[in-house]
Amino acid sequence: MRSVGETPAVSIPGSDGPTSLTTVAVVGTTGYTGQEVRRLIDAHPGLGAPRLLTARHATADAPGDAPDAPEPFHPERLDGVAVVFLCTPHGVAQPLARTELERGCRVVDLSADFRLRDPELHARTYGAKHTAPELLDEVVYGLTEHARPRLPDARLVANPGCYPTSVLLPLLPLVSAGLVDQDVPVVADCKSGVSGAGNTPAPSNVFGAVHDNFRAYAVGGHRHAPEIKQEAGIRKLVFVPHLLPVFRGILSTIYLRPVQGASAEGMRAHLQDYYEGEPFVRVLDGEEGQPSLADVQRTNRCHVALAEQDGHVVITSAIDNLVKGAAGQALQNMNLMLGFPEDAGLT
Amino acid sequence: MRSVGETPAVSIPGSDGPTSLTTVAVVGTTGYTGQEVRRLIDAHPGLGAPRLLTARHATADAPGDAPDAPEPFHPERLDGVAVVFLCTPHGVAQPLARTELERGCRVVDLSADFRLRDPELHARTYGAKHTAPELLDEVVYGLTEHARPRLPDARLVANPGCYPTSVLLPLLPLVSAGLVDQDVPVVADCKSGVSGAGNTPAPSNVFGAVHDNFRAYAVGGHRHAPEIKQEAGIRKLVFVPHLLPVFRGILSTIYLRPVQGASAEGMRAHLQDYYEGEPFVRVLDGEEGQPSLADVQRTNRCHVALAEQDGHVVITSAIDNLVKGAAGQALQNMNLMLGFPEDAGLT
Amino acid sequence: MRSVGETPAVSIPGSDGPTSLTTVAVVGTTGYTGQEVRRLIDAHPGLGAPRLLTARHATADAPGDAPDAPEPFHPERLDGVAVVFLCTPHGVAQPLARTELERGCRVVDLSADFRLRDPELHARTYGAKHTAPELLDEVVYGLTEHARPRLPDARLVANPGCYPTSVLLPLLPLVSAGLVDQDVPVVADCKSGVSGAGNTPAPSNVFGAVHDNFRAYAVGGHRHAPEIKQEAGIRKLVFVPHLLPVFRGILSTIYLRPVQGASAEGMRAHLQDYYEGEPFVRVLDGEEGQPSLADVQRTNRCHVALAEQDGHVVITSAIDNLVKGAAGQALQNMNLMLGFPEDAGLT
Amino acid sequence: MRSVGETPAVSIPGSDGPTSLTTVAVVGTTGYTGQEVRRLIDAHPGLGAPRLLTARHATADAPGDAPDAPEPFHPERLDGVAVVFLCTPHGVAQPLARTELERGCRVVDLSADFRLRDPELHARTYGAKHTAPELLDEVVYGLTEHARPRLPDARLVANPGCYPTSVLLPLLPLVSAGLVDQDVPVVADCKSGVSGAGNTPAPSNVFGAVHDNFRAYAVGGHRHAPEIKQEAGIRKLVFVPHLLPVFRGILSTIYLRPVQGASAEGMRAHLQDYYEGEPFVRVLDGEEGQPSLADVQRTNRCHVALAEQDGHVVITSAIDNLVKGAAGQALQNMNLMLGFPEDAGLT
Repeated sequence: MRSVGETPAVSIPGSDGPTSLTTVAVVGTTGYTGQEVRRLIDAHPGLGAPRLLTARHATADAPGDAPDAPEPFHPERLDGVAVVFLCTPHGVAQPLARTELERGCRVVDLSADFRLRDPELHARTYGAKHTAPELLDEVVYGLTEHARPRLPDARLVANPGCYPTSVLLPLLPLVSAGLVDQDVPVVADCKSGVSGAGNTPAPSNVFGAVHDNFRAYAVGGHRHAPEIKQEAGIRKLVFVPHLLPVFRGILSTIYLRPVQGASAEGMRAHLQDYYEGEPFVRVLDGEEGQPSLADVQRTNRCHVALAEQDGHVVITSAIDNLVKGAAGQALQNMNLMLGFPEDAGLT
Repeated sequence: MRSVGETPAVSIPGSDGPTSLTTVAVVGTTGYTGQEVRRLIDAHPGLGAPRLLTARHATADAPGDAPDAPEPFHPERLDGVAVVFLCTPHGVAQPLARTELERGCRVVDLSADFRLRDPELHARTYGAKHTAPELLDEVVYGLTEHARPRLPDARLVANPGCYPTSVLLPLLPLVSAGLVDQDVPVVADCKSGVSGAGNTPAPSNVFGAVHDNFRAYAVGGHRHAPEIKQEAGIRKLVFVPHLLPVFRGILSTIYLRPVQGASAEGMRAHLQDYYEGEPFVRVLDGEEGQPSLADVQRTNRCHVALAEQDGHVVITSAIDNLVKGAAGQALQNMNLMLGFPEDAGLT
Repeated sequence: MRSVGETPAVSIPGSDGPTSLTTVAVVGTTGYTGQEVRRLIDAHPGLGAPRLLTARHATADAPGDAPDAPEPFHPERLDGVAVVFLCTPHGVAQPLARTELERGCRVVDLSADFRLRDPELHARTYGAKHTAPELLDEVVYGLTEHARPRLPDARLVANPGCYPTSVLLPLLPLVSAGLVDQDVPVVADCKSGVSGAGNTPAPSNVFGAVHDNFRAYAVGGHRHAPEIKQEAGIRKLVFVPHLLPVFRGILSTIYLRPVQGASAEGMRAHLQDYYEGEPFVRVLDGEEGQPSLADVQRTNRCHVALAEQDGHVVITSAIDNLVKGAAGQALQNMNLMLGFPEDAGLT
Repeated sequence: MRSVGETPAVSIPGSDGPTSLTTVAVVGTTGYTGQEVRRLIDAHPGLGAPRLLTARHATADAPGDAPDAPEPFHPERLDGVAVVFLCTPHGVAQPLARTELERGCRVVDLSADFRLRDPELHARTYGAKHTAPELLDEVVYGLTEHARPRLPDARLVANPGCYPTSVLLPLLPLVSAGLVDQDVPVVADCKSGVSGAGNTPAPSNVFGAVHDNFRAYAVGGHRHAPEIKQEAGIRKLVFVPHLLPVFRGILSTIYLRPVQGASAEGMRAHLQDYYEGEPFVRVLDGEEGQPSLADVQRTNRCHVALAEQDGHVVITSAIDNLVKGAAGQALQNMNLMLGFPEDAGLT
């Protein structure tokens, strides 16, 4: 069995060595996230055809008839799998991850099951006791640009939520540098395309309810707020998500008070310096205008801009919620876990 | 039996006795606002066919050939006109309003020309010296629910901007009641449909630039910010507008810190009490969910909801930018100026 | 019991007499059609608050708790009801209509249950034996402009399908006048907004499946084809519906071969003559361009244009599928059944 | 000078030989087509950075300041260019193509300038005399799947129009096989996304005119009709384009009468046989449902389905108008001209 962190015997254009393809698995293939993970796996030069599994009817033996129907999840179906992508509903990933780790697989969990480090907070936030709390200590929160050193050895990566990704990429370096006044809340006014709500037909996502419409939701508190607070290390946050009549993309508008002496200009310089050379994060110059969803849709990029009004700083941050906010970041994490170039399959 | 052409003895619901039809004029009929004013005039039971004028080519004598082509603006064309609606670009309304008042007309200006009381602030904001500063003292800022006592005698009404209307309706009563902590800025994160940007074809409003897209604009400062500050009586405001891929509607999400002892619940009670019985403003109960654009599109209504996170209050406010944010409020103001029922032609 | 066709003791502007309001009922209030019927009833000056009924759980006694929750359908709840609008799924209306007629109500059925005169054809088309065939002889097919003489005495009106309405309004007068060559099929390429498919959440109507997308469906044959053939009196029809990423509206493009000597110009003249003075049908002049959905959305109008290519005539016809294609035409029919002005509540 | 048809000294994955990159040029880079050509060139493994030229201000010497601003078109700027893509407005390509051929470049013209073989027909259709009629004889009409044998030696390729591409791919093999009854017209009811109309802001393409709307245009005759007739070899065609509220994609619904003995099933079998193994054309099986825009957007694919009603055959055909209908097919043609694998850069 290959030990964790060992560089796989795989080659892709630009790297040396033999060309065997790595096998990965996807558990949960019917949602938008699972479909996007599959699409990116297909486009990845170092990966073979993925093993497709379903956590539903885990006791059924008969595989589906359709050519790419997923097989029921059985531990033995994980043999030879380097990384498992969990694209299951919240709550389902906890026992699956334990099983997968036991079988020697490494795990990138795209659900929320391992994002919160404190099991009590998890229980309050997601309404159920955590069933694999012993794993929480080793979880790597996979905001790739900030988790990079820990990824090569990570066994279990909690892929960040879509909203947190869009907020944390600009916010985290500013908080870490002590530039954000924490006496007032950070306000994150976030707008997401409909794909963020999943593809299960519901009154809230039928065309007639979304098209030509717009509204806020979860205004009293959303599950991504504790995740943002935990990772940004901030005490106060007001986070309001909204539903856009578009399919893909998140634009977050973040309002914060700089500490004495800080400014939008200084923060921009700090972020540009921090993300210099990053393949996927771009901090726009003042004159470049504003990030838009169209700039980042179907890419793994995050575009950020900063401005100032009445002494407060306004940050806008755009990502594709299904790519950098989910499947793309999951493969970016996998690339670093397995020793691929970070942008393999993502450009 | 009434003979054809005779002035009709017409009454409208809620008014007494017969009332012959009132003549109004519209200057500027090609933009979305002018078109919406015309649509609402046509639906108003107390108004006759409007006189359509254009401020372009004011020296040309020949009227257009099309059946409803506007005539060039000449002072004598205002004879018998009770109210003139100015739907002209910024800067044009200043000399027109002076002329109209001299001819005995009353004026509802839908441009920004008379919204700011301080001519210096106007000059800084709109980039040109005010050419009718002597009129600024008598201007009534026509946020109808707050201007009601002054409207019957008003000669010159500055119809509020669309963003300010959506922000001020919930904000103003809270500030007036001393419930808003002014040591931190009020944040107004506002999202508007494309009609707010006018109908002149431009790279920014072609379908390919807006559809399936979303972005912020004027992040460093927008002309509606001084107007909101002036009317709300607040010192600090961070106001960021965004462009939605919808045609009609504004949703504003407003973040503020309540003073010690105040809360979202108390503010909701205050607003529900304040707007009790109002035909067009509705403050939703906590359990009624969130206002959406679909609830207010093509109506003169404003729907408001309040929630709380980490001690801060979040207010959402939805209007139709072309109706309550422009033409509908203009007719609502006219109704009060002329003694019509306030909701005549608006339900 | 009031005999069928008796003029109700009701008055609306423009009619004489007392002003008591007529009571109507709506069975099926949760679909888009039922909601649109309710909206139009509320706007109708001669109707009181409608009685809202549901055919689901017809045996349950307890009414719903919500203020406007429908009551279970019981025959005695029809007392005093002049007209019942059936907005139920196909198959449900047959027994309901029989009961309603027995209670002395008149019926406008917005489902497909009484549109086909031949019960065998109905069974083949809708997959179930007709359960009220004895009523088929007296059904009036309610394409209002063509059913007008029969409506005052009609007890049971089959409200036309949305696609048939858009196709038949221009086609029927041309076929009746012998202008259409029936040796080749009439081709009807029809495009509908999503509301035509109902509001039950399904994979086919979630935002992600419709937005930015377009496709044909039922290409091998759609249930509206026999209805169009029956009413137009044509032998051959190729009818292909498509799903537009809009909420409301149908545009039908109809291709036909004129008989020797006929032309688009002559057909246009015939239609303009035929529909002269009609409040809701407008045949555009050659130079007026093409009907668009925006011209007819939220109205009871049908706009038609004609052109010619290579000896064939192209007709475009636009309606709002929920208004002229459903609820609006239902009220237009009711107006004529009850002696209201035909456009009451529809302008 | 390199002779036409010589295989360039270039290699891409899957081919042998050295790996120098080929230089191409794009004239006209501001429209959607020019931008899409650039995007595809960037993704092509065998092409270097393209030379960007503009036909505007051809006499100006100063290049633009922006990093990728196009240079003014000068013949000497074509040195070393293997293929020039002309993405200019109609009429501009004629003199440019002559110059380019004289300089030894090969040309793929994405405008309509060389699509019609008869200069008289061109003049009637495009309203101007052809200025390079001597080139018409050698033009290869680049519907790739049908032009393949002539492309390796082609000097001047007329890239097909977007509508013709969608119609001809299914229609041409059926006509060639004698399966289409030409006594009645073929009807092509085509629906296109807005990008087909270009990105110059105009009243017809602003968001407010397109969103939530739909209409036909050019109903009396469109410039693509003679092109379809010429290439399909049919005498009678009724072609009506419509404007969809989407950005990318064309769905064409084609109605035709099969000759005695032919059927939709037989035609499907013929097309499946004809296009067997093609990388970009897929003829769906009967049970696979209907092509949708979402299936082909951002791809070079054409999806086709067939059905039958009342003895007539209905064909639906979907492409991305900017890819298979323009830039993608242009690169597909270039691949065959230069000896690249046909799908290089297109998957």
